[in-house]
Amino acid sequence: MSLHPFDTAIALTSEGDDLWQGHTSAAYANMVGPFGGITAAQALNAVLGHPRRQGEPVAFTVNFAAALADGPFRVQARPARTNRSTQHWIAEMRQGEHTVATATAVTALRRDTWSATEVALPEVPAPQEVPAPTRSGRVEWTKRYDMRFIHGGFPPAWDGAHGDSSRTQLWMRDNPPRPLDFASLTALADVFFPRIWRRRATLTPIGTVSMTIYFHAGQAQLRRTGTGYLLGQAQAQAFRDGYFDQTAQLWNEAGELLVTTHQIVYFKE
Amino acid sequence: MSLHPFDTAIALTSEGDDLWQGHTSAAYANMVGPFGGITAAQALNAVLGHPRRQGEPVAFTVNFAAALADGPFRVQARPARTNRSTQHWIAEMRQGEHTVATATAVTALRRDTWSATEVALPEVPAPQEVPAPTRSGRVEWTKRYDMRFIHGGFPPAWDGAHGDSSRTQLWMRDNPPRPLDFASLTALADVFFPRIWRRRATLTPIGTVSMTIYFHAGQAQLRRTGTGYLLGQAQAQAFRDGYFDQTAQLWNEAGELLVTTHQIVYFKE
Repeated sequence: MSLHPFDTAIALTSEGDDLWQGHTSAAYANMVGPFGGITAAQALNAVLGHPRRQGEPVAFTVNFAAALADGPFRVQARPARTNRSTQHWIAEMRQGEHTVATATAVTALRRDTWSATEVALPEVPAPQEVPAPTRSGRVEWTKRYDMRFIHGGFPPAWDGAHGDSSRTQLWMRDNPPRPLDFASLTALADVFFPRIWRRRATLTPIGTVSMTIYFHAGQAQLRRTGTGYLLGQAQAQAFRDGYFDQTAQLWNEAGELLVTTHQIVYFKE
Repeated sequence: MSLHPFDTAIALTSEGDDLWQGHTSAAYANMVGPFGGITAAQALNAVLGHPRRQGEPVAFTVNFAAALADGPFRVQARPARTNRSTQHWIAEMRQGEHTVATATAVTALRRDTWSATEVALPEVPAPQEVPAPTRSGRVEWTKRYDMRFIHGGFPPAWDGAHGDSSRTQLWMRDNPPRPLDFASLTALADVFFPRIWRRRATLTPIGTVSMTIYFHAGQAQLRRTGTGYLLGQAQAQAFRDGYFDQTAQLWNEAGELLVTTHQIVYFKE
C-alpha cells in the first residue's frame, strides 16, 4: 500500500538529540517554495514524534523566515519546559546554516470540562451540494485539497474589482481523503488563498510571516471527524503598510469547532 | 522626575550576548505571579532594546510556561534570521535554570501601502462619558490601568449566571497616562479579564498559556494615539476540555485598528 502524499511529505528521520531531517515535497509545491501549511505540519511533526512529548497540541505558532529551497531540511525541537499537564516547545527549521522557520508549541493533557462554542457553524449547504471547482489550480499543492467554495471563492478575473469584505467560506479536505490528525489539521488551517486577492481581485505577491493555531479538538474529535469535510471560514481584519491579518475557524460537518487560527501576511503592492 | 511604573517594570539590564536581566514588579503583581501582560512586555523589550534589531514589531507570540516567582529573571533574545525587510526573533525567559516563558517575534520595516480595515470601531460612547469603575481591583496590576467598561464588565456577583456571549468592550489606558509604545500596547493586549468569568460568573482559576499579537500600527500611529484611550473588544470563540480562546481588537479613539490579538487560556473547573 502506498503512503498518502501528505504522510510522505511530513515524514521526518530522527538524527537524535532533538534533531530531525525532512525533505521538501514536490506534491505540495507553491509558486515559490512549498505550501506554508506543509512546512507548518513538518515543524509540528518534529514535536508530535518526539519521544519526550506529553499530551496533545493546544497552541502552535510558526514563523516563516524564508522560502524553503527544494531539498532537505533539519528541524530541531526541544521541550523548554515540562509541567504536570503542559509542555512548552521551541523548534527551529534550518537549511544548511540558515534558519527558514521558527516555531513554538504547547502540548497538554486535556480533561473533560464544561464546554461551549460562541461561533457556530455558519448556515451553509452540505459539502455534497457544493460543486467542486471546474478549474484546476495553477500550483501543485492546491491539487492535494478538495476545496468547495460556498462564498468568497477565488476571484473569477484579476480585474481589481474591490469588495468590502474578504470573507471566504468553503468545505475542504485532503485529496485523496485522509483521516484527520493534528498534522493535517495544521496544514488545513493554511489552505485559504490570500485575503488580499479576495478583497482586491489583484494578483498581489504575498507571503505568510507568522501563523498561530489553537486546537480546540482533541484526539476523540479528530477520530469522529475522520475523512469528513471541514468548513473553513477566513477573513482579514486589517490591511496596512504591507501586512494584513487573517482570522479563521475550522468546523467539522457535525458543527464542532476544531480550530481557531490566525496569521499575518506580507504583501507587496 | 520619577519613572512611570510601567517603565520601571519593563527595564532590562544588558548582560551582553543576547542576554538581559530584569526583575518582576510589585506594581504589576497578579494573584499568583505577575500580570501576564507585563511579562509579555518584558520579553518583547529584550527584542526592542537589542542592538541588532531592525524595524518595528509586526508579530509577537509569548508562551507562559510557569508563574514567575517574585525576583530577578533573565531573557535571552536572538535574531534567528535577518532578511532585507524582516527579522525573526526567538526569546526565552528563565528564572535560575527554569524556563518561565518562550517567545517569538517578527520585526519589519513598514512601507506605506493601500490599506483597509474590515472591523470598524464599534459604536460606543466617548471615554469621558463612561464612568470609571467604583470598585478598586483586588489585585495590584489592575490599579495600573484606567478601565471604563461599556459592555460585558466584571461580573457584579459570582452567582454562576450564564450568558451566551463572552464579549467585553471597554476603554482603557495606562494609569497614570503614558504615551503609547509597542511595549505598553503589548501589555494592554492582555488587560481583558478572563472570558470564562464573563461567560459563567464563576471565579474559575485560569492561566493564559499562549498569546499572539499582530501590530497593525507603526510608530506614527502610536505617536498619534499618545496618551489617548484604546477601545478594547474581546470575545471567546470556544471553551472546551480545560482551555478557551480569546480573540480581541484594540482601536485608538480615532478608530484606527492598532492591534489584533489572540490567546488561549487554561481553566480549572
